[in-house]
Amino acid sequence: MAETQDNLLQKIKDQGDLVRKLKAAKESSGKIQEEVSKLLALKAQLGSEDAAPSKFVLKTPKGTRDYNPQQMTIRNNVLQKIITVFKRHGAECIDTPVFELKEVLTGKYGEDSKLIYDLKDQGGEILSLRYDLTVPLARYLAMNKINNLKRYHIAKVYRRDNPAMTRGRYREFYQCDFDIAGQYDLMVPDAECLLVVTEILNSLDIGKYVLKVNHRRLLDGMFETCGVPADKFRSTCSTVDKLDKSPWEEVRTEMINEKGVTPEAADRIGEYVRLNGSSELADKLLQDEKLSKNKSAVEGLEGIKLLLHYCELYGIKDKILFDLSLARGLDYYTGVIYEAVLTQPIKIGNEDQTVGSIAGGGRYDNLVGMFDSKNKQVPCVGVSIGVERIFSVLEAKLAAGDISVRTSDIDVYVASAQKNFLEERMKICAELWNAGIKTEQSYKKNPKMLNQLQHCEENGIPLAVILGESELKRGLVKIRNITTRQEDEIPRDNLVEELKSRIEVLDIKEMNGPIRK
Amino acid sequence: MAETQDNLLQKIKDQGDLVRKLKAAKESSGKIQEEVSKLLALKAQLGSEDAAPSKFVLKTPKGTRDYNPQQMTIRNNVLQKIITVFKRHGAECIDTPVFELKEVLTGKYGEDSKLIYDLKDQGGEILSLRYDLTVPLARYLAMNKINNLKRYHIAKVYRRDNPAMTRGRYREFYQCDFDIAGQYDLMVPDAECLLVVTEILNSLDIGKYVLKVNHRRLLDGMFETCGVPADKFRSTCSTVDKLDKSPWEEVRTEMINEKGVTPEAADRIGEYVRLNGSSELADKLLQDEKLSKNKSAVEGLEGIKLLLHYCELYGIKDKILFDLSLARGLDYYTGVIYEAVLTQPIKIGNEDQTVGSIAGGGRYDNLVGMFDSKNKQVPCVGVSIGVERIFSVLEAKLAAGDISVRTSDIDVYVASAQKNFLEERMKICAELWNAGIKTEQSYKKNPKMLNQLQHCEENGIPLAVILGESELKRGLVKIRNITTRQEDEIPRDNLVEELKSRIEVLDIKEMNGPIRK
Repeated sequence: MAETQDNLLQKIKDQGDLVRKLKAAKESSGKIQEEVSKLLALKAQLGSEDAAPSKFVLKTPKGTRDYNPQQMTIRNNVLQKIITVFKRHGAECIDTPVFELKEVLTGKYGEDSKLIYDLKDQGGEILSLRYDLTVPLARYLAMNKINNLKRYHIAKVYRRDNPAMTRGRYREFYQCDFDIAGQYDLMVPDAECLLVVTEILNSLDIGKYVLKVNHRRLLDGMFETCGVPADKFRSTCSTVDKLDKSPWEEVRTEMINEKGVTPEAADRIGEYVRLNGSSELADKLLQDEKLSKNKSAVEGLEGIKLLLHYCELYGIKDKILFDLSLARGLDYYTGVIYEAVLTQPIKIGNEDQTVGSIAGGGRYDNLVGMFDSKNKQVPCVGVSIGVERIFSVLEAKLAAGDISVRTSDIDVYVASAQKNFLEERMKICAELWNAGIKTEQSYKKNPKMLNQLQHCEENGIPLAVILGESELKRGLVKIRNITTRQEDEIPRDNLVEELKSRIEVLDIKEMNGPIRK
Repeated sequence: MAETQDNLLQKIKDQGDLVRKLKAAKESSGKIQEEVSKLLALKAQLGSEDAAPSKFVLKTPKGTRDYNPQQMTIRNNVLQKIITVFKRHGAECIDTPVFELKEVLTGKYGEDSKLIYDLKDQGGEILSLRYDLTVPLARYLAMNKINNLKRYHIAKVYRRDNPAMTRGRYREFYQCDFDIAGQYDLMVPDAECLLVVTEILNSLDIGKYVLKVNHRRLLDGMFETCGVPADKFRSTCSTVDKLDKSPWEEVRTEMINEKGVTPEAADRIGEYVRLNGSSELADKLLQDEKLSKNKSAVEGLEGIKLLLHYCELYGIKDKILFDLSLARGLDYYTGVIYEAVLTQPIKIGNEDQTVGSIAGGGRYDNLVGMFDSKNKQVPCVGVSIGVERIFSVLEAKLAAGDISVRTSDIDVYVASAQKNFLEERMKICAELWNAGIKTEQSYKKNPKMLNQLQHCEENGIPLAVILGESELKRGLVKIRNITTRQEDEIPRDNLVEELKSRIEVLDIKEMNGPIRK
């Protein structure tokens, strides 16, 4: 059986090579289609091999991973801090299905659409896995005819990207979004989104950061005055977006060679995108000979000025940088855009690691309308926190021994030094669980004392109840403090009360949560 | 464009009808394949129509739904109670990807495999959405060579079933699993799983229930003594499993006509499966002429006896019913199996609703070994809580007005009676957020007083800070209690302190959590 399977895998590989060769040689689509059919038939054969434990590599799918208890503790701790901020601002929680009708996602992501995961057509609807949480939100608002909503949504999204897993980039990853939908006054909800980002980054304590802001209307106006045709605004935008990773020269070349921007226009763009500053820069650009005559650019600049003013009122002006090179990749933004970037490398063990962008978002006023039959708009602005990057920094710190985590909350371990105490242990455990005390015991009938105490030490369990024949005859049990190794004899009948008062003291020490230095 | 799309949809529908007709008429597979290819080509055309707002029905995929803020509040509240129980027993949290290599799922679910969602082959690995959380756990244990783990896992799973959404059955639904993996003494972890179920059902307060238990070894022994061939044990098991929904006569007919069991064997099975009771029944069956001679049956009965004894020590014996008709559908169980069933209909408004099974699980000792190249086993036992049914009961109670939920946690609303107070409101909001107070304000520059107070009432916000020109001149602000409508003037400088002490009193009243009568 394994032999047949291996043969089949080899045949599939060969056929795949053939198809790629034909495509590379630009053979006729008929011929390619014929060989693709053969390939699919071979793969179908593979799927129908309903054999049990055949030899295959035991792994998670490419670009995905399991979260073990330590990673989940870090994750839950980070998300809890973020949710606290979201709720402090009155956000409600929603959730949507992991897949959507493919049509819902079609035409929303520009060049990135090729990264969408599709489900197999199994005779029902045509479905795709969600690519972000923003398009599902827009679909949700339009479908339920909701005009106002401040919501957060924390869920996994899916992108068939080339994963760089060491830097926290996966094909399956958490997004953590906060959005405000509704027809409101200019920049008021937008400024609150920026404040939310600062509150979150401050509470996570991951070092200094800057919040870059820009405006899509300003970018449009800038492209227009530089001589880019209107139908090339969005694709030029995606190219400008690469400036955080590539030098201007490369971006310029891509603009000219791939996006059809003239060298002169590209050079004019190049002058603008190296500018950044504060509201003084906005004032200066409002005097710029060309931009000041462009309606779109003026609208963007006035917007930035108002946003910066509100940020000052919110006490976060020193965190904000107006940066003309910020473009954001996605098509759907229509107004302010922003991105939080860590400005210092993070120390992990003895090494410095550069993290970069850690949150991003912006205004998208036309997305909900794309789902409404009458094209009714619901203006939206929101932000997405890059929690995967935060997770991967903390995981690296854990691996380097900079932090430690406790993965279980158990306060009391019920142990016995002698044989045949399982039933007595069970009765005591039941009593403690009933009293709400987080309790564990060995699942073995006659565990060794050493193993039981070792389990307590390895798992950071602070207290052990130790049962012994002589004590029980006198109506007593022992409580052992695992750290100090001190043991006290306690009347069996006072056990719950005594443990509760000891745990209360412990809890005060652990108030800072599961992640500890 | 919409015209073309509609035409295409019609063509797809027609072609689909044709394929179904050919299949029904059992035409040659070549002919069917030809028409299927045409259908796929048409569907592909649909996918590539990268047109923007085309006309399509705005919906979530079949069998799925969004969770709105009220539903999420109910969901989070229920899950929080369940997690509290899991953690009280020392369970750690893990997560796995939403999809697995298809091979991981192959051969694990018996007849239910047809319900697995596959992903489209996009030139990479062949993937399927997870069907439950048990097989991913087994894959995780084998892959990481873990021999001991007590973990919980709460995540969505996917089944292409025919949804009965009103009864809480969806194609995408939460599972909520607690499992203990490791080589331990007989029935010790198994009994704790049953205790965990009772603690959860008690904490959720959803009425009376019974925990049915049975043993796969007893079922096997029973089938053997009744004359069912060994290769039909599993499929006969799936048929017996239908006894909770169908009468014996129907189950008997399916056994004989579809599973190839002889009428005599079926009748003998029929005698056994109507039995239920407590440890006395186990004792009686150990005296049964046929069962007492069957090694497998005796092993099952001895196991049940020990389990019931441990349940007595845990104080939950009155909740347990040994029931020979309990079979469980899945193939992988090897030992004890159990299912919690509500024994009373739940009152929703003026109507009674029957809920039925609400948790289930059992022992599966051979599943991890299926993933190990040396077939190394890690025995496991676990339970899955049917949270979707619990959600749907609570949602129905909400709809009937039996309970109410508050979807946001906001304590303070910052309002203004006059125009041009946005900036002042912003400064106060920033101050309150900084102090950790859950605060909201209108995103409009000049909102109407009435609308602001209405927002507080609709969202259960208990306190409002009201800004007015005359008060501010005197260094004062007003605090309004939304329920009593009492207003007090407070020095602006004492605002944070004053609000905090008022909120402290509120919090005591709200300690019971977001779901309130």
